[in-house]
Amino acid sequence: MKRCHCIGARPAQKPLLQQGDILIAVDGGYAQIQDWGLVPDRIVGDFDSLGYVPTGDTVEVLPCRKDDTDMAVAISLGKSLGAEFFLLQGGLGGRLDHSVANFQLLQALAEEGYRGILFGEGQCVTVLSSGSLCFPDYYKGYLSIFAVGGDASGISLEGLSYTGQELSLQPNFPLGVSNEFLLGQSGKISVTSGNLLVIWEELQIPLVQSIFHTLDDLRWEQKNER
Amino acid sequence: MKRCHCIGARPAQKPLLQQGDILIAVDGGYAQIQDWGLVPDRIVGDFDSLGYVPTGDTVEVLPCRKDDTDMAVAISLGKSLGAEFFLLQGGLGGRLDHSVANFQLLQALAEEGYRGILFGEGQCVTVLSSGSLCFPDYYKGYLSIFAVGGDASGISLEGLSYTGQELSLQPNFPLGVSNEFLLGQSGKISVTSGNLLVIWEELQIPLVQSIFHTLDDLRWEQKNER
Repeated sequence: MKRCHCIGARPAQKPLLQQGDILIAVDGGYAQIQDWGLVPDRIVGDFDSLGYVPTGDTVEVLPCRKDDTDMAVAISLGKSLGAEFFLLQGGLGGRLDHSVANFQLLQALAEEGYRGILFGEGQCVTVLSSGSLCFPDYYKGYLSIFAVGGDASGISLEGLSYTGQELSLQPNFPLGVSNEFLLGQSGKISVTSGNLLVIWEELQIPLVQSIFHTLDDLRWEQKNER
Repeated sequence: MKRCHCIGARPAQKPLLQQGDILIAVDGGYAQIQDWGLVPDRIVGDFDSLGYVPTGDTVEVLPCRKDDTDMAVAISLGKSLGAEFFLLQGGLGGRLDHSVANFQLLQALAEEGYRGILFGEGQCVTVLSSGSLCFPDYYKGYLSIFAVGGDASGISLEGLSYTGQELSLQPNFPLGVSNEFLLGQSGKISVTSGNLLVIWEELQIPLVQSIFHTLDDLRWEQKNER
């Protein structure tokens, strides 16, 4: 599964690039990619947060007034380069509206059969659309699920502090907040209809595993997967 | 319109209480209410964030394992005491899932004809459900709108950097991010069908006006207003 790292302006972790991974700098994210000593495949943005406009064949300069966010354009570029799994960083914290915009981009990705994860500030976010997500048994901390874009049904929760089958969630009732991983048990979330926004705490296992290892250990199933 | 201030554990600003206002301490928020020298009408929570369980007639101790969040219970209490306008603080920043849970509570409030605002960390959030919201002409900074819970249509934007009539938004396309107030113009957002999550930057006018003054200057209309 071809992966695309999109790095925005907020603090991000240097990706562990695998063979074939795509690396896209999103506006101010270009500065930290340079600090890491990496060369991005593409550089996109209106460059308001970078502070200057870079030049070169890999640069796509966007107007300041536009319909899509810089991150949305980066995702489109990644798709055009064949990516199926998007790892978005530098898009959490700071302005809350940017975080919400990125949640909605995750929803679009999931509905189209792509995988997407947004992480940073100690938190990981994805949207699951008619599918399931299994977490390895070493995960711990809080995990919350929310119906987004409409009702979600056929929800099953296994190996977590709160479990259940054939559950439903509505977007105006946050019943799924503050569930928890059970250390030593593999947690699983699945949904048959609708979208679940899933938010969990980033595992801090310094010197042993980076977040990229812990994300590699996730097991996804999506009905319409690419 | 009877107001209810619900103060959670995250940093909050001392409310300017008007005659008849209700003040509810939500778990760890009780500590800052005491620091302000105020006495809350009710104190609710499982008190995990406060660190001890307060006693007295105004205290409602909730179990740790429960369906509703502490903030949701506080809102229910406020409704039972006759409140129609909810000013929620101490519920932004920190864990992102708590913020999202509070967005969904705002949606429920709006759908039921209540007014609700969540603010903190320099940002203000509301949900507008079949109604309009007018901002005074001294507002400045970014303003973003998102369809939540389903599509939103009949959207009108006036007196802002991006304007339009009869617009539609979908929850998987963040087209409404990063609009801006125009200083000297009164901005107006309205929606005839569906819910808009509205996020704007808190005005910083120290020594002249507190955020409570700037919120008093908002003009709301809701179809099903209480």
